[in-house]
Amino acid sequence: MPISFRTQSPVLCFLAAVLLFGCSGGVKSSEYGAASADRSPNIVIIFADDLGYGDLGVYGHPTIRTPNLDRMASEGMKFTQFYAAASVCTPSRAGLMTGRLPIRSGMASDTRRVLFPDSRLGIPSEEITIAEALKDRGYATAAIGKWHLGHLPPFLPTNNGFDSFFGIPYSNDMDQVGKGTWREVFVDPKTENWNLPLMRNEEIIERPTDQNLLTKRYTEEAVGFIREHKAEPFFVYLAHSMVHVPLFRSEAFEDVSRRGLYGDVMEEIDWSVGQVMNALREEGLAENTLVFFTSDNGPWLVYETLGGSAGLLRGGKGMTWEGGMREPALAWWPGTIAAGQVSESVTSTMDFFPTALDLTGQKLATDRVYDGQSLLPILKGDTDLEIRDTYFYYRGATLYAVRKGPWKAHLITEWAYQKDTKRTVHVIPLLYNLEHDPSEQFDVAYDYPDVLADIAAEIEEHQSNMVARPTQLEAVIGK
Amino acid sequence: MPISFRTQSPVLCFLAAVLLFGCSGGVKSSEYGAASADRSPNIVIIFADDLGYGDLGVYGHPTIRTPNLDRMASEGMKFTQFYAAASVCTPSRAGLMTGRLPIRSGMASDTRRVLFPDSRLGIPSEEITIAEALKDRGYATAAIGKWHLGHLPPFLPTNNGFDSFFGIPYSNDMDQVGKGTWREVFVDPKTENWNLPLMRNEEIIERPTDQNLLTKRYTEEAVGFIREHKAEPFFVYLAHSMVHVPLFRSEAFEDVSRRGLYGDVMEEIDWSVGQVMNALREEGLAENTLVFFTSDNGPWLVYETLGGSAGLLRGGKGMTWEGGMREPALAWWPGTIAAGQVSESVTSTMDFFPTALDLTGQKLATDRVYDGQSLLPILKGDTDLEIRDTYFYYRGATLYAVRKGPWKAHLITEWAYQKDTKRTVHVIPLLYNLEHDPSEQFDVAYDYPDVLADIAAEIEEHQSNMVARPTQLEAVIGK
Repeated sequence: MPISFRTQSPVLCFLAAVLLFGCSGGVKSSEYGAASADRSPNIVIIFADDLGYGDLGVYGHPTIRTPNLDRMASEGMKFTQFYAAASVCTPSRAGLMTGRLPIRSGMASDTRRVLFPDSRLGIPSEEITIAEALKDRGYATAAIGKWHLGHLPPFLPTNNGFDSFFGIPYSNDMDQVGKGTWREVFVDPKTENWNLPLMRNEEIIERPTDQNLLTKRYTEEAVGFIREHKAEPFFVYLAHSMVHVPLFRSEAFEDVSRRGLYGDVMEEIDWSVGQVMNALREEGLAENTLVFFTSDNGPWLVYETLGGSAGLLRGGKGMTWEGGMREPALAWWPGTIAAGQVSESVTSTMDFFPTALDLTGQKLATDRVYDGQSLLPILKGDTDLEIRDTYFYYRGATLYAVRKGPWKAHLITEWAYQKDTKRTVHVIPLLYNLEHDPSEQFDVAYDYPDVLADIAAEIEEHQSNMVARPTQLEAVIGK
Repeated sequence: MPISFRTQSPVLCFLAAVLLFGCSGGVKSSEYGAASADRSPNIVIIFADDLGYGDLGVYGHPTIRTPNLDRMASEGMKFTQFYAAASVCTPSRAGLMTGRLPIRSGMASDTRRVLFPDSRLGIPSEEITIAEALKDRGYATAAIGKWHLGHLPPFLPTNNGFDSFFGIPYSNDMDQVGKGTWREVFVDPKTENWNLPLMRNEEIIERPTDQNLLTKRYTEEAVGFIREHKAEPFFVYLAHSMVHVPLFRSEAFEDVSRRGLYGDVMEEIDWSVGQVMNALREEGLAENTLVFFTSDNGPWLVYETLGGSAGLLRGGKGMTWEGGMREPALAWWPGTIAAGQVSESVTSTMDFFPTALDLTGQKLATDRVYDGQSLLPILKGDTDLEIRDTYFYYRGATLYAVRKGPWKAHLITEWAYQKDTKRTVHVIPLLYNLEHDPSEQFDVAYDYPDVLADIAAEIEEHQSNMVARPTQLEAVIGK
């Protein structure tokens, strides 16, 4: 078709460009502007599992193709210093859902990192989830995918603010029934080696579910929900089970990626993001919907090429090195977020909760401490606004590291999941300037004693005010 | 201004979009199409120095901002498996200029890695440079920036196909006169600590030149040349001295980057790329100019935060690990290269020479071996065309590693420039699948003996046909 326009004059082209700029450039068109005045924006959070900082095209991976996520970046905002709330699944998701450090909700533990199928507890009812806050403002709410905040009824999405749940209650490597070395079981995984339940609301509808179809079915569910609820404000939490091992993808994604199985699985997630964005565009909702994409924690390195890459960052899942907690993060909201923005602000999944409240004109509850801040000023263009001074890292319930401005002090370091964890308590903390040295290679503790003293004072204040709920992760069914 | 268009109807917007798509989408507009039929395209190669694979925004660096290079990627093509011809400066540039492995031109050595101010030789007159080949087709040709293929008259750009030269003859850390540890001299460098000559054609016009102004002055020279030669086909080789240590930037780029000095210097190069692209657009030449951006080799790791980052790749400058030779590479040619393309093909700076010949309807000389291939089919949309089966790596004049398809075999590994180089000759080569394992972490030699045997046969054939010119790098003035 474009060929037929070859003879257009430059003047016509210029006019067309000016007209088009008026339609989409930086301000809402009247059509969507009106909608936006009438109702709060929809919110879609797409959450990957165990995705590394270096695993997307636009974050530098050479052989994983992510055209839809790359497009999210070029049409929206890419964050480069964005953190998960924890370095493993359950506490990370608790932080996202509540806007609070997971130790505040008791969803962290040093001995059991996450919830397991024998766990008796989950997210405490006293916690306010994003879904609960948005429910109060009339949002339709759907949790799709992996939950992992408790699989017994009180802790499921439908008792925590979501109208519906379709997905798996915990990680897709739990309920393993196949025996063998990890290579035998994971390199070419068979879905029957896991007795994984698929749930609809509070019922198990398939067990074992066919893991090959999870990404596809979650996507269909999300797109169906969006189309069905286009006339009312909605919140979709689409938490993919992948790229957590065992890695599965549907037939259409077999051997599509040069990166091998991990790449195939990631490319199906990228497809899923594209499907959601297409549905929003097709339903005329793009300019009234904020879409976030990120992940719960860094790559699971012990699985070698079945795990992802943290890119230039050190470490991975389970660690408070940057690779364990810093994540790719993209925000897309045409007409509100200008195209092609990059934010170097220190930001976090714990900011989603305050952002959702900000978008719906609500205030944070005053009876508890929030660790997140609204991202709205950043999304609207103040890309390098510093919304926080100090950021606290934990591995479980113990403080391992703290970031203050560009500085990061490690009190304890550890190589989680490795045979030799090399756990070290640093009497003089390691100190890195993360902005000059994102790979945490050059300890400058002896050059900056004042910075260490500042951080020590911050830690003292933080800990003296900390009200940590007793851990919910160690209670086991029948005990 | 956009606000005044708020009331446009969706129909008008759609029409505008269609019109605009017709103007710029995938085909040349008639205006530029005509120009292109009349004359061969201009070629601009922008070459950075010691830039790491992970140092651009669009290759995943968190705190270096490169909006102009990111825009080159989103408007053009990003290569993810693109190699420099060598892991250090002189041989790398020889490979780029000739389309041939540097050992063929004698521009490689095991004992002296590069040319120095006391070197007596340079690029042999028998070699055909890109500039010489394009001169034959009536191109105006300019070399701007660092040369490093010989600083005595026979070897300078003006005797190797370039109409003019403005820049420095070798690396900006040569002719050091300031004394001290590397930290004392390089962390906050003073330009007077290097007695570096700035040349115009074959004359030294300033010595020492003010290194703070190099990036700026090169850029002004390139933009001036483009504007002056807009009526004829031209070739600009803009080889920045930076981000090679000592790091310098002009006043406008002091403390602009969160990444510190290295970031400032890189952000000035990004600005320079933007200036060149703007000039091409302003002169109406954008659709008739192919612009490449890449670098000569990976980051100089021993300089710690004054060196760059290879991102997820292992190693850096001077090494045949991927970090030493794989580079960011972007191609931009609106109307010919479709926007937002990614090529995962194994490609190289040695492909520039055959590409230039292809673009000007010339054939490669049959009296010598070329290692490059034309990139034109890839640029025109066949992004994953495999233009080569096997790719040969050298550290100096000795073969260290070979890539065949996704596989890379290391015959010798070494950590160049380090106190402990850990030089190891591998009786059984290390073998990595670079596409599954870009970080070269998991040796699979024992799992793929057939692959190793294939590569051994390729090496045997390659070496039996190799006509290596005696090295030009070891001859010293007065000896």
